[in-house]
Amino acid sequence: MNGSTFGTRFRVTTWGESHGKALGAVIDGCPAGLPLGEEDIQKYLNRRKPGQSRYATARQEGDCVEILSGVFEGKTTGTPISLLVRNTDQRSRDYGNIAQSYRPGHADYTFDQKYGFRDYRGGGRSSGRETIGRVAAGAIAAKILEQLGISFTAYTRSIGSVEINNFDFAEISQNPFCMPDAAAAKRASEYLETCIKNLDSAGGSIECRIDGVPAGLGEPVFEKLDALLASAVMSIGAVKAVEIGEGIRAASLKGSEDNDGFCLKDGHVIKTSNHAGGIMGGISDGSQILVRASIKPTPSIARPQTTVNQDKEEISLEIKGRHDPVIVPRAVVVVEAMCALALVDLLFANMSSQLDSVIRFYKNS
Amino acid sequence: MNGSTFGTRFRVTTWGESHGKALGAVIDGCPAGLPLGEEDIQKYLNRRKPGQSRYATARQEGDCVEILSGVFEGKTTGTPISLLVRNTDQRSRDYGNIAQSYRPGHADYTFDQKYGFRDYRGGGRSSGRETIGRVAAGAIAAKILEQLGISFTAYTRSIGSVEINNFDFAEISQNPFCMPDAAAAKRASEYLETCIKNLDSAGGSIECRIDGVPAGLGEPVFEKLDALLASAVMSIGAVKAVEIGEGIRAASLKGSEDNDGFCLKDGHVIKTSNHAGGIMGGISDGSQILVRASIKPTPSIARPQTTVNQDKEEISLEIKGRHDPVIVPRAVVVVEAMCALALVDLLFANMSSQLDSVIRFYKNS
Amino acid sequence: MNGSTFGTRFRVTTWGESHGKALGAVIDGCPAGLPLGEEDIQKYLNRRKPGQSRYATARQEGDCVEILSGVFEGKTTGTPISLLVRNTDQRSRDYGNIAQSYRPGHADYTFDQKYGFRDYRGGGRSSGRETIGRVAAGAIAAKILEQLGISFTAYTRSIGSVEINNFDFAEISQNPFCMPDAAAAKRASEYLETCIKNLDSAGGSIECRIDGVPAGLGEPVFEKLDALLASAVMSIGAVKAVEIGEGIRAASLKGSEDNDGFCLKDGHVIKTSNHAGGIMGGISDGSQILVRASIKPTPSIARPQTTVNQDKEEISLEIKGRHDPVIVPRAVVVVEAMCALALVDLLFANMSSQLDSVIRFYKNS
Amino acid sequence: MNGSTFGTRFRVTTWGESHGKALGAVIDGCPAGLPLGEEDIQKYLNRRKPGQSRYATARQEGDCVEILSGVFEGKTTGTPISLLVRNTDQRSRDYGNIAQSYRPGHADYTFDQKYGFRDYRGGGRSSGRETIGRVAAGAIAAKILEQLGISFTAYTRSIGSVEINNFDFAEISQNPFCMPDAAAAKRASEYLETCIKNLDSAGGSIECRIDGVPAGLGEPVFEKLDALLASAVMSIGAVKAVEIGEGIRAASLKGSEDNDGFCLKDGHVIKTSNHAGGIMGGISDGSQILVRASIKPTPSIARPQTTVNQDKEEISLEIKGRHDPVIVPRAVVVVEAMCALALVDLLFANMSSQLDSVIRFYKNS
Repeated sequence: MNGSTFGTRFRVTTWGESHGKALGAVIDGCPAGLPLGEEDIQKYLNRRKPGQSRYATARQEGDCVEILSGVFEGKTTGTPISLLVRNTDQRSRDYGNIAQSYRPGHADYTFDQKYGFRDYRGGGRSSGRETIGRVAAGAIAAKILEQLGISFTAYTRSIGSVEINNFDFAEISQNPFCMPDAAAAKRASEYLETCIKNLDSAGGSIECRIDGVPAGLGEPVFEKLDALLASAVMSIGAVKAVEIGEGIRAASLKGSEDNDGFCLKDGHVIKTSNHAGGIMGGISDGSQILVRASIKPTPSIARPQTTVNQDKEEISLEIKGRHDPVIVPRAVVVVEAMCALALVDLLFANMSSQLDSVIRFYKNS
Repeated sequence: MNGSTFGTRFRVTTWGESHGKALGAVIDGCPAGLPLGEEDIQKYLNRRKPGQSRYATARQEGDCVEILSGVFEGKTTGTPISLLVRNTDQRSRDYGNIAQSYRPGHADYTFDQKYGFRDYRGGGRSSGRETIGRVAAGAIAAKILEQLGISFTAYTRSIGSVEINNFDFAEISQNPFCMPDAAAAKRASEYLETCIKNLDSAGGSIECRIDGVPAGLGEPVFEKLDALLASAVMSIGAVKAVEIGEGIRAASLKGSEDNDGFCLKDGHVIKTSNHAGGIMGGISDGSQILVRASIKPTPSIARPQTTVNQDKEEISLEIKGRHDPVIVPRAVVVVEAMCALALVDLLFANMSSQLDSVIRFYKNS
Repeated sequence: MNGSTFGTRFRVTTWGESHGKALGAVIDGCPAGLPLGEEDIQKYLNRRKPGQSRYATARQEGDCVEILSGVFEGKTTGTPISLLVRNTDQRSRDYGNIAQSYRPGHADYTFDQKYGFRDYRGGGRSSGRETIGRVAAGAIAAKILEQLGISFTAYTRSIGSVEINNFDFAEISQNPFCMPDAAAAKRASEYLETCIKNLDSAGGSIECRIDGVPAGLGEPVFEKLDALLASAVMSIGAVKAVEIGEGIRAASLKGSEDNDGFCLKDGHVIKTSNHAGGIMGGISDGSQILVRASIKPTPSIARPQTTVNQDKEEISLEIKGRHDPVIVPRAVVVVEAMCALALVDLLFANMSSQLDSVIRFYKNS
Repeated sequence: MNGSTFGTRFRVTTWGESHGKALGAVIDGCPAGLPLGEEDIQKYLNRRKPGQSRYATARQEGDCVEILSGVFEGKTTGTPISLLVRNTDQRSRDYGNIAQSYRPGHADYTFDQKYGFRDYRGGGRSSGRETIGRVAAGAIAAKILEQLGISFTAYTRSIGSVEINNFDFAEISQNPFCMPDAAAAKRASEYLETCIKNLDSAGGSIECRIDGVPAGLGEPVFEKLDALLASAVMSIGAVKAVEIGEGIRAASLKGSEDNDGFCLKDGHVIKTSNHAGGIMGGISDGSQILVRASIKPTPSIARPQTTVNQDKEEISLEIKGRHDPVIVPRAVVVVEAMCALALVDLLFANMSSQLDSVIRFYKNS
């Protein structure tokens, strides 16, 4: 599993399992001079914390982050930032009955196949808790981007069959689903009640809009901005689709419908529409970036399911323990974090795109 | 633009512009001992070659590949394989009238913003011709995978609003659209006639099914198989969405509908369904892998479009020259090639997943 | 400072400063199934621990390692291994008087120039304590290699002008200098007494012999085994030269003297000599690998030195605090650790060198 | 052999064998806007060209470089630059008699062990001709550095037992050995005559001085400037040692002798000496960088040598064909090229070291 590092210039390495001692991340390549405290990171972690509504797992974790290195007198020093979150509420007994079985929709079987055995306590490394390291690192990336006027608006677009109909920014933080539409949130609540009653679960979709991104980010042809965003977001457990701008809808449009024209505004070149979602030829075009992720339903459901155990017997499995009937709202900040990580990596890469900029950089410094 | 390398163990670096002297790729990390000739690669390049139907650009390119290194007496030597395709039909005059304007839907504007100027002959590096290097490298990857019993079935799933209704493998090579459904191909043809008449263009979607992949490929948490496939496919110009298995549909399913159960068949563990598209927790599960790409309509359309030129004047632009009314059929082999590159990279990565395998490898050799 | 990761398949990321809360490393790419406990790592850390003789700093650090992830029921799981060592004896007051000055021979000035400011408590990230992460990771690499019959013999070859004259393996652990020659160790002791009396310090050289390495490791042309070893060893603070086999002596030999002939022994091809130090064309040849590192004298000396402070005033600086008059003996295990990291990385890389091996791997599994 | 790429931001991938169709390199990450023509590269290639004196192989190669991509209207575009040099004088018959034997001092045996077979025509990928790609790429790196006032002085320091005694810059280009000392060059010539007469060969050492490097380059702790230079230079075939500044001599110095003090000059901080060779803590300190490489004698010698053939028979081998009695003078430009590649990579990496610089970069652009 040597894929635990994301990025090549702003490099994040995450580690930790759901029921191990701790989880964390090392961020290498953060510029020196960024004001950074544990509260900056905690704010983001709190957004993914369990136990915040009856639609999220009742597992109680403090999820308190500790900065172990890379910060001195309140500012980053340019050296690696090590972040640590201890697991405090592990209760691994809950998972005893599934230790020998392959849970449908989970990675139990594939981990066993790949590694020869697995940490059967919870999902181990494939648990949703793995995203703690991503979110903690993303908080730092987002703080860097904020200094450049780049901001994120991430929210739930749909839960099950319930989709938002309008966009009210203020509403996002007012309902437990992070939906920018109060009426949709109400319908989502009813939808989930039915799921819970039926011992079932729901999926949904998340959108992330990014404003203020300068034109020029993205390194063709394999580290294009959209390719890196796709990789970043698809690497989140449970994500099954990533779309940019019109996404799958683009496939059924005509060229005359999908093309974004250019015009002038106050002497600046802007686009007359944004079907592209802010990315042309894999490079940011200065308009809003739009990323969409489709998330499958929580695989842990209470109703009996057909499966096989490690002794190769077909069994009926009932999964007990605490599980979110929907993980989408908690994944909103994870999508945002991954987009921030991708962007800051390409932000640094772009600094050597033009020789004149390189010369200016070194001649002035 | 230092993003021209894909993969970390089977590493491909592509180079070349649409109207430069040549295009090509260097493949580093190909194992020694693979029988390889130019015809193995040419076969794939011919599948993306222009001028094969009236729905593809009339530009005539031989697109003949030359192997410059890495092969000796008909077998790969383990050293880098350099592939070269000369551009023979450049006719750069055709593009004269667009040299100073930003074509809607193209990367002209973003390349200018990133690099300060651009190669205005055709799309330069953002042209579809850039995929020649990908396809040539993918042919080698596919040949390695073939030795392991891994096979690809890629085809057009939809063009514009025309979607396939059934799957007839033999039909894929029988129509100019690579559709596994003769009736759909007929409707696609009519749809495109209308597009051409209206000086417009169409998009569509491509599916790639991969059979025979052993369980265990994928390196959590950032080089998961699905994340790498997403990056590989999204990096193809014009792709706006990537889906795995149920894809966006998964978001509206319930857990009980989306979960794939396990059962036994001839003593082997298999899944009772494949909503996951062959990937669980980012690792292949031994069942068929299913990847879907949504492709936007060809941006070059003959009807006048509103845009801006480099002198910052708003203008009406008419794009002349040879352009595909739909690029989807020619992109089928590109999607297949990128999937092959991703897979072979993870195939090698997986060889050191278990200590026992490493020991066995070196003790026997 | 995004250079804190070593290796591409067995990847180590180190973090931590001399006077921060802790230091550590994340190892990504360790195969599953390696028996591993904290004692395996502690054994190596103890070899570099300060306070073991009067020639090493009196600073007392427990340097106790904690494994936070990646190990379950006594075996590695294939997921990232996070290692933590808390700093317990920081006494940062000692460094107060040098906070504003550039110590000669240290990285104070260059860190200030690169990052705009620096963690002035001790060396920060450029302290010798940074090697804790390397040694901890190296212990794991060495344990993997041990399973393949690969073993290390690292020792001090010289201290100041005192060089070993003979090689007695058992003696290495019997003197505080890790010298395989008791008489030389005695002379080194006298040499250092003089240094201490003169408020001065000494450098020296370290050799690492590696036995049991199979032929074939090394990835030409830039990840050759010797290139990777050179990078690994030169990245250790205070190392100013790296040699392989005859090293600099090779420059004055004739071809007829330096060439290693081949002969047969028990039906196996072996070399008649080993001037090459076990590496031909950047690839291991099956004979003993020999690496040599030259280490400059400890820069912290008690006698007054001429330097400049941050207010750009020329001053005379006296460095107080606890400092090793020679760091060479404590660096022996660091050189060994870095060599182990380089080797294991190339060991995994080599597994896909031949197509037949790849096929055999997947067909049998 | 997936180690054919050097660098992570200015990335060079070389390919090609001594007796294949061609050799070349792809440079990815070159900033847009660098004036570049084939003559810029040819100038460097001519410095390594064979056939320039009686001490170099008589093989005649045009070694004419062709730029295939990445340059438009005389300037780099930011896209990958592909360079091609055709092999014109292959005469592979010369090598017939060594096809089945392992030449002492060569990589024949290790290539066979690693890959299962080898391209037996000349050294294949391990031939000195492989450096063509390095030198061609290095020429571009050097041209970038030149724009920033960074310049290289590389020369032969010794041949066999003949070492330079003084440094006369103008003399370097006046003798066939690139020695900055006419008297030493004369003695070297006599030394080589004896070698040739004895059917033997010589090694030597090369120094590279780099002026004008700004302070701050190097990414601790594994991509330190000295570590990257060591890797870059040690990856050149035949190099057996790399030294920085005092190099191995540092091991026998005392702290008071080796430490470089700081003082002021015209208000700037400078060092009072340069034992460190311009690098402190792995980061450039603004003074001259000094790198030294020790090169083993040419392994191909005409006198009979004991070896083994592929049928595992002990034989006496006489190597015929054209071989340099010393390769040191031709390697001077290779060392220079590798240093340039390492420097330019770290030059770009350093641009995101400080947050203020990143903000200034994007706010101004």
